[in-house]
Amino acid sequence: VSYITLTTDFGTHDWFVGTMKGVISRLAPRTQVIDLSHEIPAGAIRTGAFALTAAYSFFPKKTVHLAIVDPGVGTGRRAIGIETSNYFFVGPDNGLLSWAVASEGIKAVHSLDNGRYFLPQLSATFHGRDLFAPVAAHLSSGVPLRKMGRHLKEFNRLPWPEAKQSRHGIAGEILYIDRFGNGITNIPSHLLPSQAGRLKIVLRRRHVCPVAPSYNAVPPQCPLGVVGSSGFLEIAINGGNAAEVLKLRVGLPIEVRKSEPRTTRVPI
Amino acid sequence: VSYITLTTDFGTHDWFVGTMKGVISRLAPRTQVIDLSHEIPAGAIRTGAFALTAAYSFFPKKTVHLAIVDPGVGTGRRAIGIETSNYFFVGPDNGLLSWAVASEGIKAVHSLDNGRYFLPQLSATFHGRDLFAPVAAHLSSGVPLRKMGRHLKEFNRLPWPEAKQSRHGIAGEILYIDRFGNGITNIPSHLLPSQAGRLKIVLRRRHVCPVAPSYNAVPPQCPLGVVGSSGFLEIAINGGNAAEVLKLRVGLPIEVRKSEPRTTRVPI
Amino acid sequence: VSYITLTTDFGTHDWFVGTMKGVISRLAPRTQVIDLSHEIPAGAIRTGAFALTAAYSFFPKKTVHLAIVDPGVGTGRRAIGIETSNYFFVGPDNGLLSWAVASEGIKAVHSLDNGRYFLPQLSATFHGRDLFAPVAAHLSSGVPLRKMGRHLKEFNRLPWPEAKQSRHGIAGEILYIDRFGNGITNIPSHLLPSQAGRLKIVLRRRHVCPVAPSYNAVPPQCPLGVVGSSGFLEIAINGGNAAEVLKLRVGLPIEVRKSEPRTTRVPI
Repeated sequence: VSYITLTTDFGTHDWFVGTMKGVISRLAPRTQVIDLSHEIPAGAIRTGAFALTAAYSFFPKKTVHLAIVDPGVGTGRRAIGIETSNYFFVGPDNGLLSWAVASEGIKAVHSLDNGRYFLPQLSATFHGRDLFAPVAAHLSSGVPLRKMGRHLKEFNRLPWPEAKQSRHGIAGEILYIDRFGNGITNIPSHLLPSQAGRLKIVLRRRHVCPVAPSYNAVPPQCPLGVVGSSGFLEIAINGGNAAEVLKLRVGLPIEVRKSEPRTTRVPI
Repeated sequence: VSYITLTTDFGTHDWFVGTMKGVISRLAPRTQVIDLSHEIPAGAIRTGAFALTAAYSFFPKKTVHLAIVDPGVGTGRRAIGIETSNYFFVGPDNGLLSWAVASEGIKAVHSLDNGRYFLPQLSATFHGRDLFAPVAAHLSSGVPLRKMGRHLKEFNRLPWPEAKQSRHGIAGEILYIDRFGNGITNIPSHLLPSQAGRLKIVLRRRHVCPVAPSYNAVPPQCPLGVVGSSGFLEIAINGGNAAEVLKLRVGLPIEVRKSEPRTTRVPI
Repeated sequence: VSYITLTTDFGTHDWFVGTMKGVISRLAPRTQVIDLSHEIPAGAIRTGAFALTAAYSFFPKKTVHLAIVDPGVGTGRRAIGIETSNYFFVGPDNGLLSWAVASEGIKAVHSLDNGRYFLPQLSATFHGRDLFAPVAAHLSSGVPLRKMGRHLKEFNRLPWPEAKQSRHGIAGEILYIDRFGNGITNIPSHLLPSQAGRLKIVLRRRHVCPVAPSYNAVPPQCPLGVVGSSGFLEIAINGGNAAEVLKLRVGLPIEVRKSEPRTTRVPI
C-alpha cells in the first residue's frame, strides 16, 4: 500500500477534490488517499504550510504529500517536487512546502515540467486535477522524481517567523487558529523555561493567562497557555473558545514572561 | 480488510483527523478508515453518543468504532475499550460509548493504560493521535483488547432519556437535530400505537402536526412526525427545515397523542 | 479494485454518509468509495446533476456513480440504474443522472425494484442506506444491472439550458457557483469565437469584464471571464470572489459579446 495526502484550499463543497481522487485512482489504483485539510482559507499559503508541517511526519515513509494553495495557477509559477529522506512533497513553488521540508533532509528538488506525467489536456485553472494529481499518482507508483522534470538548485522558501528573546521573556505571534479556537503560536516548547507553572502570557500589553500543563489545570472558562500537540505553545480557554473571547488573530504578537509572584491579574 | 470508524468533534478544517489516519496507516496498513462524523459540537458527549448509536450496527463485524468527544483530555479521565459480540468500541470513559453498547452483548471492558500501544510521546491535548488512533489500529490488526490494559468491572454510562407514558399519550424529547433540520426524538417506533395516521404531535402545548408514513404524506411545507431511519419518531417539514420553522432544540419536550377527530389545527 | 463515487445533499455533519459506507463495506469489501460532494444544497437536483457531469469522466471505467438528491424519497418515485459504455450511474429517477449520461453511450436503463438487493428493512426516509448503497455495492461487485429490476425504455431527463446565439453574441446563464465564488456558465468553450482577448461579458446590461486566458491576465481584484476546468466559461475575479462582488446567482443571464475597441468600461 502507498499513500498520498492532500492539503488544499479547494473546500469540499464542489467536486474538485473528488475529481483529483478519480485521477489518482486511474493512475495508481493501489494508492490510498488521505485528506489532511481542504479548508485552508483561499490563497492562504502560510496557513497551508503550517498545517502540512504539523501533520506530515505521522505518515508512513514514502508517502507523497500533495499540497495545493496556488493563487498563481495559470501564470508561469513553477510546480515542484521535493524528495526528502522520508517523503515526497509536491505542490506549487510558492513556499507552501518549505516549512515542512525544513526539518527533513532534502535529497532532490525537481521542476514538474514533463507533460508526459500530466493529463493529456492541461486546463488554465485546475492544475490540481491535470498536473499535480497525476504527478503524485506516478510518484506513489514508483516513477522516480527525476523523470518528472529538470533538477533545481533553488526553490522558494517562506520566512519562518522565529520567536525571539525579548527584554522580559520570549516574544512570538499567533500562527494558526484551530477549530476549537485555540491560537497556536510560533514559540516551541523547548524555548519555554522549565518552571512552566510560573510563566504568564501577555497579549495587547495585558497579562491574560498562566502557562499550565493541561486545559484542566485552570478553572473552567479561564484562559491558559499550554504546549499543544504540534510542540508549540497554544493559547486556549478551558472549555471555551480563546479566539473569540481573546480576539485572537493570525499575526497577533504575544509574549511569555516569568510570572512575578505579586502580579495582579488584569480582567480581560 | 478490517475497518475503523471515526466519530469526533475535531472538525475537518485542521489536520487533526488526517493525522490520526496517518498514524493508523503506519500501524495497520490494511485497515480502512471510515468517517462517521467529525462535526459533533465541541464537547457534546450526548450528541456523539447518539450518532454512534444510530450508525454502528451497519458496519462489518469486528469493526473498531473509535469515538472521541473528550473535554476531559489531559486530566485523569480513563480511556477505555469495550469488546461486544460484534464490535470493538474505543474512546474516553465519559459515557460517549455507553448508548451504542447498551444493545450489544458486552464481552469485556478494559482500561487503555498500556503505553506500549501508544505513540512514544503522549501530548497533553491530542490523545486522538497519540493514544486512541494507535490503540484502534492495533485492535484492528488483531491485538487482543486484554493486552491494552487492565480489566474493568464498571465504566461510565450516560442515562438514556426514556420516553414515558403520559396522561394523553407518550412524552419524549428532541435528542438530535440533523442537517435537514429534522428533530429526532427519543420515542422509538414500537411505542407508537399502530394507527399512525390518527396520531398528532404536541409541542409547547400546541398541536403542530400529524404522524404520517412519509414526508410526502402531508402537503409541501407542512410539518409532520415520521418514523425516521434510526427507528425513532422524527419531526420534519415536507420540503422544509423543521428546526428553523418550529424552533426545535435538543431537549425540547414533545408529546404524541391520539388525534381526536374534531381537533382544530392551531396555526404555528 | 473497484470504485463507487458519492454525490449527495446529505452533508457531513451527521452519520448518514458514513453509514452508507458501512453498508458498502459489508457487501463489497474490496470497493473503494470516493466522495464527490455531500454539500449539494438540500433538494437541488440541477446543482447535483452539474457536479456529477463535471466529475464523472475522470474515474476508472466501471466506476459506479451513485448520486442522491432525492426530495421525493418515500413517494412512488422510481430508483434507476443506468449502464453506459464506461460507467454505471445509480440514483432517483428525477433527472439527477440525466446530464452526466447525455454524452455517454447508454447501454441499458433499469428500475431498481428487486428487493433482494436492498437491505432487509427499507426505511421511509433513508433509501441512500437501505436501497442505493446496497445496489451500488452489488453492481461494483459484478452483479449485472439487469438483475436489479425491470428494463426501462424511458427515464426522466432534465432540460439542459442551451446557450444561444443572440443578436450581439452568445446568451447564457450561470449554472453553478463554486467555493471560490466563480460563476460557471452554460457556455461551452467551443461556442466562443477564437479571438478570446476581444470578447467581453455583459451582466445586467453592463459590460463587466473581458474574456481572458487565465486569472492573472487581468489585474488583481478585476473580474474576468475564463474557460474553466469543466470546459465552460466562468466568471471570476483575480484573487477575489466574483459571486459576492458581482452578486452572481444560479440562473442569472449573461451575454458574451465581441468587444468594440472603443467600448468604455462601466464601473461596477
